[in-house]
Amino acid sequence: MKIRVGIVGVSGYAGLELIKLVLQHPGIEFAAAMDAEELGGKPLHDIHPRLKGAASLTTVTPAAERLSELGLDTVFLCTPDKVSYDLVPKMMHSGIRVVDLSGSYRLKDMASYSSWYGFQHANPDLLKAAVYGLSEWNAKAIASANLIANPGCYPTSVILALLPLIRAGMLETGSDILCDSKSGVTGAGRGVKPELMFSEVTENFRPYSPITHRHAPEMCQELGWDLDSFTFVPHLLPTNRGIISTIYVQLQQPASSAEIEAEYGKRYSGRPFVRILEGARLPELRAVSHTNFCDIAWRLSRGGRRAVLFSAIDNLGKGAAGQALQNFNIMHGLDETTGLI
Amino acid sequence: MKIRVGIVGVSGYAGLELIKLVLQHPGIEFAAAMDAEELGGKPLHDIHPRLKGAASLTTVTPAAERLSELGLDTVFLCTPDKVSYDLVPKMMHSGIRVVDLSGSYRLKDMASYSSWYGFQHANPDLLKAAVYGLSEWNAKAIASANLIANPGCYPTSVILALLPLIRAGMLETGSDILCDSKSGVTGAGRGVKPELMFSEVTENFRPYSPITHRHAPEMCQELGWDLDSFTFVPHLLPTNRGIISTIYVQLQQPASSAEIEAEYGKRYSGRPFVRILEGARLPELRAVSHTNFCDIAWRLSRGGRRAVLFSAIDNLGKGAAGQALQNFNIMHGLDETTGLI
Amino acid sequence: MKIRVGIVGVSGYAGLELIKLVLQHPGIEFAAAMDAEELGGKPLHDIHPRLKGAASLTTVTPAAERLSELGLDTVFLCTPDKVSYDLVPKMMHSGIRVVDLSGSYRLKDMASYSSWYGFQHANPDLLKAAVYGLSEWNAKAIASANLIANPGCYPTSVILALLPLIRAGMLETGSDILCDSKSGVTGAGRGVKPELMFSEVTENFRPYSPITHRHAPEMCQELGWDLDSFTFVPHLLPTNRGIISTIYVQLQQPASSAEIEAEYGKRYSGRPFVRILEGARLPELRAVSHTNFCDIAWRLSRGGRRAVLFSAIDNLGKGAAGQALQNFNIMHGLDETTGLI
Amino acid sequence: MKIRVGIVGVSGYAGLELIKLVLQHPGIEFAAAMDAEELGGKPLHDIHPRLKGAASLTTVTPAAERLSELGLDTVFLCTPDKVSYDLVPKMMHSGIRVVDLSGSYRLKDMASYSSWYGFQHANPDLLKAAVYGLSEWNAKAIASANLIANPGCYPTSVILALLPLIRAGMLETGSDILCDSKSGVTGAGRGVKPELMFSEVTENFRPYSPITHRHAPEMCQELGWDLDSFTFVPHLLPTNRGIISTIYVQLQQPASSAEIEAEYGKRYSGRPFVRILEGARLPELRAVSHTNFCDIAWRLSRGGRRAVLFSAIDNLGKGAAGQALQNFNIMHGLDETTGLI
Repeated sequence: MKIRVGIVGVSGYAGLELIKLVLQHPGIEFAAAMDAEELGGKPLHDIHPRLKGAASLTTVTPAAERLSELGLDTVFLCTPDKVSYDLVPKMMHSGIRVVDLSGSYRLKDMASYSSWYGFQHANPDLLKAAVYGLSEWNAKAIASANLIANPGCYPTSVILALLPLIRAGMLETGSDILCDSKSGVTGAGRGVKPELMFSEVTENFRPYSPITHRHAPEMCQELGWDLDSFTFVPHLLPTNRGIISTIYVQLQQPASSAEIEAEYGKRYSGRPFVRILEGARLPELRAVSHTNFCDIAWRLSRGGRRAVLFSAIDNLGKGAAGQALQNFNIMHGLDETTGLI
Repeated sequence: MKIRVGIVGVSGYAGLELIKLVLQHPGIEFAAAMDAEELGGKPLHDIHPRLKGAASLTTVTPAAERLSELGLDTVFLCTPDKVSYDLVPKMMHSGIRVVDLSGSYRLKDMASYSSWYGFQHANPDLLKAAVYGLSEWNAKAIASANLIANPGCYPTSVILALLPLIRAGMLETGSDILCDSKSGVTGAGRGVKPELMFSEVTENFRPYSPITHRHAPEMCQELGWDLDSFTFVPHLLPTNRGIISTIYVQLQQPASSAEIEAEYGKRYSGRPFVRILEGARLPELRAVSHTNFCDIAWRLSRGGRRAVLFSAIDNLGKGAAGQALQNFNIMHGLDETTGLI
Repeated sequence: MKIRVGIVGVSGYAGLELIKLVLQHPGIEFAAAMDAEELGGKPLHDIHPRLKGAASLTTVTPAAERLSELGLDTVFLCTPDKVSYDLVPKMMHSGIRVVDLSGSYRLKDMASYSSWYGFQHANPDLLKAAVYGLSEWNAKAIASANLIANPGCYPTSVILALLPLIRAGMLETGSDILCDSKSGVTGAGRGVKPELMFSEVTENFRPYSPITHRHAPEMCQELGWDLDSFTFVPHLLPTNRGIISTIYVQLQQPASSAEIEAEYGKRYSGRPFVRILEGARLPELRAVSHTNFCDIAWRLSRGGRRAVLFSAIDNLGKGAAGQALQNFNIMHGLDETTGLI
Repeated sequence: MKIRVGIVGVSGYAGLELIKLVLQHPGIEFAAAMDAEELGGKPLHDIHPRLKGAASLTTVTPAAERLSELGLDTVFLCTPDKVSYDLVPKMMHSGIRVVDLSGSYRLKDMASYSSWYGFQHANPDLLKAAVYGLSEWNAKAIASANLIANPGCYPTSVILALLPLIRAGMLETGSDILCDSKSGVTGAGRGVKPELMFSEVTENFRPYSPITHRHAPEMCQELGWDLDSFTFVPHLLPTNRGIISTIYVQLQQPASSAEIEAEYGKRYSGRPFVRILEGARLPELRAVSHTNFCDIAWRLSRGGRRAVLFSAIDNLGKGAAGQALQNFNIMHGLDETTGLI
């Protein structure tokens, strides 16, 4: 019997991506498409013409009273941070397991929310209960979690590349980590903003929110690294999809490329969605676009004391909807690749 | 009376850009369009349809014997490194001043050519005579030079941002400089390569030649920085034009943003083509595309011991043809903005 | 038990698309990846990095002697016309059913091949036996065919929109049909050509091969329309994928929009992959990209004697690999949507 | 002495293009940058970062009382239709010559405005006085005009290709003209609309406003063709700039390609901005991008009774700001190419 699933925030890009994945998943019944009031009653294919003939649901509003009638097992929240913050307790109260794609339950330090997210967080219990859904690292906790804080797109690309080396003690203690990340435009969501108009983005490229981006504390929390030694600079690519992170680190002592490869192997060997690239190959967006893969490679600096790490993901795939579904699979004891390869 | 000018390598992207600039320059007579044998006799607008009605020259071959007949004062070489290497002495022998856009006379250390450029350099006199044409720094030498080694596109974007801080002694001695650069596709020239086909580049983004790119020694030479403490990682953008360099440096001691601004002001105040951005603005390709400007900004890391520098240029403008023309203006005692603003 | 399937021409864009579809198809075992000699022995993910971890086959050469050993039921040919022309008889001789994505067995008039395809065709029996694989129109013949001539991308978009109106006798006899089609770059295949380099295609758009494109006789054959009254003008879009055809026709007598809708309804109602758009909506590439759908709409001219038909497909989906798989499903008695929605 | 010029609507794309052209024009003093109230007092480079160091004006509001103080000779209106409609009389009352890039004074039939433009026109005198600024056809009237109705972008591309054949009587009387046009995104202006966001436009292509676009009556007026026999279908390209029009016409009697060429030659020979392409060449956006050229070519259908005409312009160049400046040159007795080649 199929698992009844709902998605809130179907009108955005992550919502659409999740719909496409869920429709192909053999174990899921897509039972409820939810969004804001003004879209209530609209057929999905009015919102996303591409879904005509593929999805026949009509959008409803996630009003608390109706949730229990829907008989949902799990709900994915593709909603803005504050909306998720409010919805999560209601969902859980109705006995629904939640995969939240927003940042509203990612930071363990409750006080951080006012400075980084612009709203006061007052739900310490749920913050504590929430499992950070980085599938390759937290599978055990994910399996039994009722609330998954699905990782941010940038953090997914950065943490997957860095964590094996940090856990192995290969980075110089207290040294600076420098993350230069580049993301496609869907990472900014589907809001209508002047700076995201076609004519402002095509043939353009630019950094934005250097050092102050809210994904920085999320990365430091998971990496166990001091925020003052961590510099994160995101850039906007003239592409729809994809993130490349180029990460500059200082090694504890000169390492060979084989030693680094060995550490990655220890952590990711057998993990279906992390691919360690060999030989001359380097990560590129096209190789991960429309997939749930994360591609990783590295190069040593001339002196050997520095390494440059590269990682590539699809921001809507492994960086959002793909990883959400991977976590769903783990939560329900399914093979984690179901519906994803 | 107008100055008679020739361009060799008119079929490439830098060549085309230079033609467009030269046609608008009030002091230049575009007297000779030169390229390889197989294009000899072709009208320019057969090679570049956009030039129909704007340029009426027919392409000739830069055979030594005919050079003197052409009565050229200055020639721009938009040719591959090895072709430039061979042409420069012939040009100069004919009494022609040369602005070479290739790398063939940029490195002062002659031995470097075999390792970085793949050919043996055997012209120490010309290497010594060549002036590195970074207009904002070497104007005096450029004015009287007969051979300009026009800077590479990446080096222009990196050196303009770094040199003021290095000269001011603001960077920690021996510390690492990390340059993360992103360039549009015309930077790779007009050669036909599988990896530069439209369907391989659009919706894609990727690093290439990390650490080993030949522009690294050029930057270090001009910055006076040890190559072993210098990490340069270029990336390919899905755009036609433009370079953004994001540069991570360690400061000698914590600095305020105003102190950095003051150093830039000292060096570039009154210089028409370097723009120091104020307030919240950051460099972006669109603001410099089809111009000779270099836009610079910076941000301090949380600890204050690090700075992130940003610079943006058009790789075909300030990174190639634009700067070449700026140098031409300086060489001929013209206002350096002539034909460029 | 799964059906053993091979693909020849795995290195191209249609080949890659087919691999992705075949890997998701629950009834197919992808048993052989074939391509030219020089790729023999290469793992698929060396040719297409995105397939790493998803497909583990190594490329082999479709040498006749080994074909029977492979135990293949059906082979898809994503090969150039002349290569397909030679391979088809060998495949069929080995008892393999063939879906040929090239044009080598599409034209019933054998003599046409020298003028339109540049090679002499000498296989009248196979030409006769080949079934034109326009799934929505020839399903019965497809079901029992051993050789499918899979339609061209442009013809698919044009015929699906025109045929219902022609069969209904709604077009003025002998009147001109004008097809203005626009295609993304993958339609030109993966060959390396100067005019398909990124910098030549991006921010560009242009007609090519007007009137003389080889897809014109294919369309006329299937539409039963005189080639002299048929004008086909393809254009190249700066996109990876997709075809929009805008088709101008003359009606036998003034018709209402409802009458046209009724004809489309008669032919396509219940057909899962043709979507007749209602209300204000018009076809667009994004709605069909990465799908097997064909979207159709129309508008009447002011006088009412003319209609403008619009159709949109993904050239690699319904225009190539998608329709090939749809035909495969029909050939094997599967639901035609298997692996496609 | 330079001619003092003002531009109203500096914040849009046509405004920016005009600023760039005006800054390079040797006979113009750019004396006033005007825009809506909320931009009043803003330096131009705050609105368009690329203008920093190139233009130093601060934006003012075109309030009537101040106009006379500005001492302007000519003003370009890059404003929405209704805004232009209101501004034109005020400008002219102040003795300023006007080049209006909007549609507010293009249609001679005053009643058309309510149906096509959505506002009631009540200025018959100015409608009559306005000269349609198609430079190649109306140069004489332009020279002495005080009000130029600068042609729309689509009409420019369509009329330049059609008018020579129509005037020569080569088209079958009463036959249908079918215009299939494709435009880059800047043609839609700089308004912030969901359907023009980067992620909705890139990798997309679509028709819009078929048959009902307001440029259709403008074309018919200038061509002297019946609107009921004229079908205009615009499409949106994923490019910043450019228009390609593919136009299908019926000839009075079979014509040779040379006869068509002769007609174009008669009209455009010696005209600097219309290029008749020879041989195998066809118009393409890249060849006209960032220029004031219009490229034209044609092909005959197989029967010879039909011709397909192709024309390419830059919608911001010959389709807007370029032609506006060309008209300005003609109005002031300057060489019409001044500042444009």
